[in-house]
Amino acid sequence: MREDFVLINVRPNGEAAKDVVVRDGRFADIVAHGSRAFDGMRVVDGEGLLLLPGLVDAHTHLDKTLLGMPWYRNDVGPELIDLIENERRMKRALGIDPQRQSAAQIERSVANGTTHIRTHVDIDTEYGLAGLEGVLASRERYRDIVDIEIVAFPQSGMLIRPGTVELMDRAMREGADVVGGLDPSGVDRDPKGHLDTVFALAERYGKPVDIHLHEPDSLGAFAIELIVERTKALGMANRVTVSHGFCLGMLADKPLARLGGMMAEAGVHLMTKGGAASPRPPVLDLTEMGVNIASGCDGVRDTWQPFGNADMLDRAAIVSQRNDFINDVHIELALRLCTYGGATMMAIDGYGLSAGCDASFVLVSAETPADAVASRPVRRTVYRKGVPVARDGALVAA
Amino acid sequence: MREDFVLINVRPNGEAAKDVVVRDGRFADIVAHGSRAFDGMRVVDGEGLLLLPGLVDAHTHLDKTLLGMPWYRNDVGPELIDLIENERRMKRALGIDPQRQSAAQIERSVANGTTHIRTHVDIDTEYGLAGLEGVLASRERYRDIVDIEIVAFPQSGMLIRPGTVELMDRAMREGADVVGGLDPSGVDRDPKGHLDTVFALAERYGKPVDIHLHEPDSLGAFAIELIVERTKALGMANRVTVSHGFCLGMLADKPLARLGGMMAEAGVHLMTKGGAASPRPPVLDLTEMGVNIASGCDGVRDTWQPFGNADMLDRAAIVSQRNDFINDVHIELALRLCTYGGATMMAIDGYGLSAGCDASFVLVSAETPADAVASRPVRRTVYRKGVPVARDGALVAA
Repeated sequence: MREDFVLINVRPNGEAAKDVVVRDGRFADIVAHGSRAFDGMRVVDGEGLLLLPGLVDAHTHLDKTLLGMPWYRNDVGPELIDLIENERRMKRALGIDPQRQSAAQIERSVANGTTHIRTHVDIDTEYGLAGLEGVLASRERYRDIVDIEIVAFPQSGMLIRPGTVELMDRAMREGADVVGGLDPSGVDRDPKGHLDTVFALAERYGKPVDIHLHEPDSLGAFAIELIVERTKALGMANRVTVSHGFCLGMLADKPLARLGGMMAEAGVHLMTKGGAASPRPPVLDLTEMGVNIASGCDGVRDTWQPFGNADMLDRAAIVSQRNDFINDVHIELALRLCTYGGATMMAIDGYGLSAGCDASFVLVSAETPADAVASRPVRRTVYRKGVPVARDGALVAA
Repeated sequence: MREDFVLINVRPNGEAAKDVVVRDGRFADIVAHGSRAFDGMRVVDGEGLLLLPGLVDAHTHLDKTLLGMPWYRNDVGPELIDLIENERRMKRALGIDPQRQSAAQIERSVANGTTHIRTHVDIDTEYGLAGLEGVLASRERYRDIVDIEIVAFPQSGMLIRPGTVELMDRAMREGADVVGGLDPSGVDRDPKGHLDTVFALAERYGKPVDIHLHEPDSLGAFAIELIVERTKALGMANRVTVSHGFCLGMLADKPLARLGGMMAEAGVHLMTKGGAASPRPPVLDLTEMGVNIASGCDGVRDTWQPFGNADMLDRAAIVSQRNDFINDVHIELALRLCTYGGATMMAIDGYGLSAGCDASFVLVSAETPADAVASRPVRRTVYRKGVPVARDGALVAA
């Protein structure tokens, strides 16, 4: 039901009020509010609301959220491997259905203003491609309201679990968009072997790479060096992401500058969620070094931890607070991770608020972009390619 | 308009459903749901909601929130002194009225389920007692819906600003309940002098002490030692609080255990807000050492930083995440800081959910206490001493 219209009196990224012509699902023209007549066009009153580009959740796990399920009382142990093994058990014990659960999170996400999602989906020898199949079904179901990119993610390890590489290969053939990886040393015990396999899959299918890297200080830094080397050797600039990169929050200034410089030069993106208890890759420093940074909700109420609401404005607040951002320009940077940074990482075509871009956006009841992050008002209206998809926390009926 | 009633089908702290008799503003009787008839009593249906004791915000700054004011675009410098001086300037430039602003935050707080607040109020030579007077007026206005305790707080320094001690003294005579202090070395440059003055005021007026301590590692630890010494010498066990105590998040295990043991033995409370970018006093370790810990919202949208919503369930989530609490028992501990921990620190009479306690409580639409923290549902009903004061985010009309 796409219809051309003019959205009057909105403030793009907090600028002075504008009138925005939307034609064929794109921004056709953006002019000062009231400066032109729009005879015969349908007019939508933006009431002075803040206009932001659609929010980008560049890292989440749609296949295993517990959203909408009964409360899960957690008593998991403290190590990474405890969390991984507990989750694998609980998938069956709790009956976590990837299709149903991804649908629950997608609806929440879109209602919060997210128009683009990159989700990791577990691939392992116990559940095979069940996660992928469920999320593919949800992607199809919601294709008119949100864009979803799927990473084949070897959550339980790859080389240490024979049969996983073959499953990853099948996942790429069956619809995954990105090759995932996980702690090449810490989990797979073979950094060269792990990364060679990941990048070989990427080369075979011509797809990007996104690697979960929780490894600390020098061990993590070594993994990033190996990732940078492969990115350059394979000409994969801007198609490789290090997710989390906790090590970047544990290095002294000099090795950090060296590594940040290498990432920027090679075109390796960073995804940080700004977790309150994990080491903090310094967003401002790395941005100044030229690294493109995205952010994501990561796990939303799952067996790892019960927090999260699939709201990327909330995420911008978390990134701000973790980075001690109190000035508006810094909070705007944190928001940028959740918009343009994610769009750059995912190479989203036609992203933004300029003429020619897709009219995928969110209207927020806030004075400024930083206010939107600090207040996270419930009142939001979300459009995708010129069509309203959510309003005040609920999807617009199809 | 206090009326006796029975609140049926509620789950105290997540236990099995109970019926709760409220008489003369107190819990008179608590029995298994449906186990008794209540002939002739007014019945209020609790619909299986979670029953928590009223939330306790044990550390905030009611006098200087910007809630409800136009967005303040912040470009303050990075040092503590920048923040203090910027705020002193902005109070006048922005017209921050302590009475109006405290009212705005109080209403938000109560709507969120807070029944007890300890607020620090700036005392300095530029604004004198204006902050105290404004908050005293609000305290009087809202006396029927919330209990407020006021700390006379020398935000701009005490010994370094001649005339401040005299103002602190006047503040204690004019209605402040607690003597505040601030970074004895870092700001006042004289730890012995600062603490002697603070404790002398406390002795003179027979009031508790609450000291903001941002000082790092050994410097902060030294201040805590001095505070412990004075607490013991003056017989002030359980009447002294170290607020923030960042140093406790920066010590190695051994000095931490030593200092925690000293605090527990002397009865010195800790208030931690679990700030994402500040060093983290380890809540679990310190609890196990026997330290009583409270929490608070601290500044809510002020010139220091724009975040915060005066919600102590939000605060419990922040404390949980900062402490990497993912198990239910740990999240329940974080919530305990925001309930019983604060009540112990403030020595609130009749606090809790047992028979005989004040019927000051909040009903939350959540399955378990940890769910309340993870989900922070908007649907809440708040009672103070048996009288409903807020519902679904708004005050009940008087």
